[in-house]
Amino acid sequence: MKHATSLTVRPYECDSYGHVNHAVYVNYLEHARMQFLHAAGFDYKGLIAAGFFTVIARLDISYRSPAYAGDALEIETESTETRRIGGTFHQVIRRGETVVAEADVHWCVVNGEGRPARPPEKFDLRKRLP
Amino acid sequence: MKHATSLTVRPYECDSYGHVNHAVYVNYLEHARMQFLHAAGFDYKGLIAAGFFTVIARLDISYRSPAYAGDALEIETESTETRRIGGTFHQVIRRGETVVAEADVHWCVVNGEGRPARPPEKFDLRKRLP
Amino acid sequence: MKHATSLTVRPYECDSYGHVNHAVYVNYLEHARMQFLHAAGFDYKGLIAAGFFTVIARLDISYRSPAYAGDALEIETESTETRRIGGTFHQVIRRGETVVAEADVHWCVVNGEGRPARPPEKFDLRKRLP
Amino acid sequence: MKHATSLTVRPYECDSYGHVNHAVYVNYLEHARMQFLHAAGFDYKGLIAAGFFTVIARLDISYRSPAYAGDALEIETESTETRRIGGTFHQVIRRGETVVAEADVHWCVVNGEGRPARPPEKFDLRKRLP
Repeated sequence: MKHATSLTVRPYECDSYGHVNHAVYVNYLEHARMQFLHAAGFDYKGLIAAGFFTVIARLDISYRSPAYAGDALEIETESTETRRIGGTFHQVIRRGETVVAEADVHWCVVNGEGRPARPPEKFDLRKRLP
Repeated sequence: MKHATSLTVRPYECDSYGHVNHAVYVNYLEHARMQFLHAAGFDYKGLIAAGFFTVIARLDISYRSPAYAGDALEIETESTETRRIGGTFHQVIRRGETVVAEADVHWCVVNGEGRPARPPEKFDLRKRLP
Repeated sequence: MKHATSLTVRPYECDSYGHVNHAVYVNYLEHARMQFLHAAGFDYKGLIAAGFFTVIARLDISYRSPAYAGDALEIETESTETRRIGGTFHQVIRRGETVVAEADVHWCVVNGEGRPARPPEKFDLRKRLP
Repeated sequence: MKHATSLTVRPYECDSYGHVNHAVYVNYLEHARMQFLHAAGFDYKGLIAAGFFTVIARLDISYRSPAYAGDALEIETESTETRRIGGTFHQVIRRGETVVAEADVHWCVVNGEGRPARPPEKFDLRKRLP
């Protein structure tokens, strides 16, 4: 399952070079992962109601090409490693054919104390992916 | 009680003109109000633990002069109207003698449902001000 | 001319109450004004190339109702006062029938030194509005 | 040369879990690198005036422990690889003894067209470090 979402760069997301600030892409990636989970039918609100949430353990992002206010970007999200308590997403941000940035994002499920924890089976992301 | 806090403009807070983005000042003002409450000995965490929180009802900000990355800014905060369930802060952001922005910020206390509500007496801000 | 644009609240735009942070609405409003100018055929890049830009002089925003991650918001933008060197926008943010926030935003054109200045006639916004 | 800078977490930097949002640390790291360059006597404004600037090519950040509004954080920055046209910074964010996050940040100098380029010798960071 490769999921794609698109967005348009807003002016306030650009820094004094006129480029999208490099931290803003981290926000874009989070937005795209949430869209991915929604499209997969994953009940994220239910996970939180059950006393769990997800955290990012590591993010490794390479910046390939700048983007500017008004640019239409597409973000492709794929789960390259999926376990019950966590996994890895590979995400690519493109403007047309040009790769703007790509990232590997490692996440895991934690409990209310913030410790890695196994969520109930219905929150196993593996069941949501083809 | 006029309270002053200072901060230095960070590069990512500037937009493509090289100026501090106008929305960032709204963040600065919130930061300064929290410092004000802390200096006044107001128990904000206690307010939340008691099931209340504060919301901004209205913000009226005038921008007088731009600020740039690295600028040292001082923010003066004063409560110009203080009631048990809300009030108004007047805040002025300066770089040296220059006024960068000034604002009136109207706030009120709400309960867990987000409705205006009277907090317990120990959270009456009037008792904290000279 | 009343212009409408829509957007979906992204998770990172929410603060520790789970609400859209009040400064984020200021970003939303800027985004909507840019969409308005684009729809009106106003050549904003040309204005900058000619050595001018626009600044916000004052923003008066009232917060009516909270918004949450995933909410679909519509922003209506109308120019209630339009002069060659500036004017006022009235903007309303709604979720369905509910008003989330509304604002009056006063702007003006400045030159490269940041002083109010009359731009060339082709950048007169009055010619772009019905 | 290990450089340390400190900052206090501001409320608007926290997300709906009450934690500092993971993208905000990327901003903190940029702020700390700028403080590092300033402390080293590197003339960043001169670099820009000479027609060059720096971009981040890759950022690999690991999140170890959450941080909260009001936390006092210290950021340690060290250049672990320094060349004339770029290099790598290692940065560690701590709250007391606790590591909150650590990152390797790869940067390079580019010219006005955004292509990697050798800046004049006086902008060689190696000459600034012990």
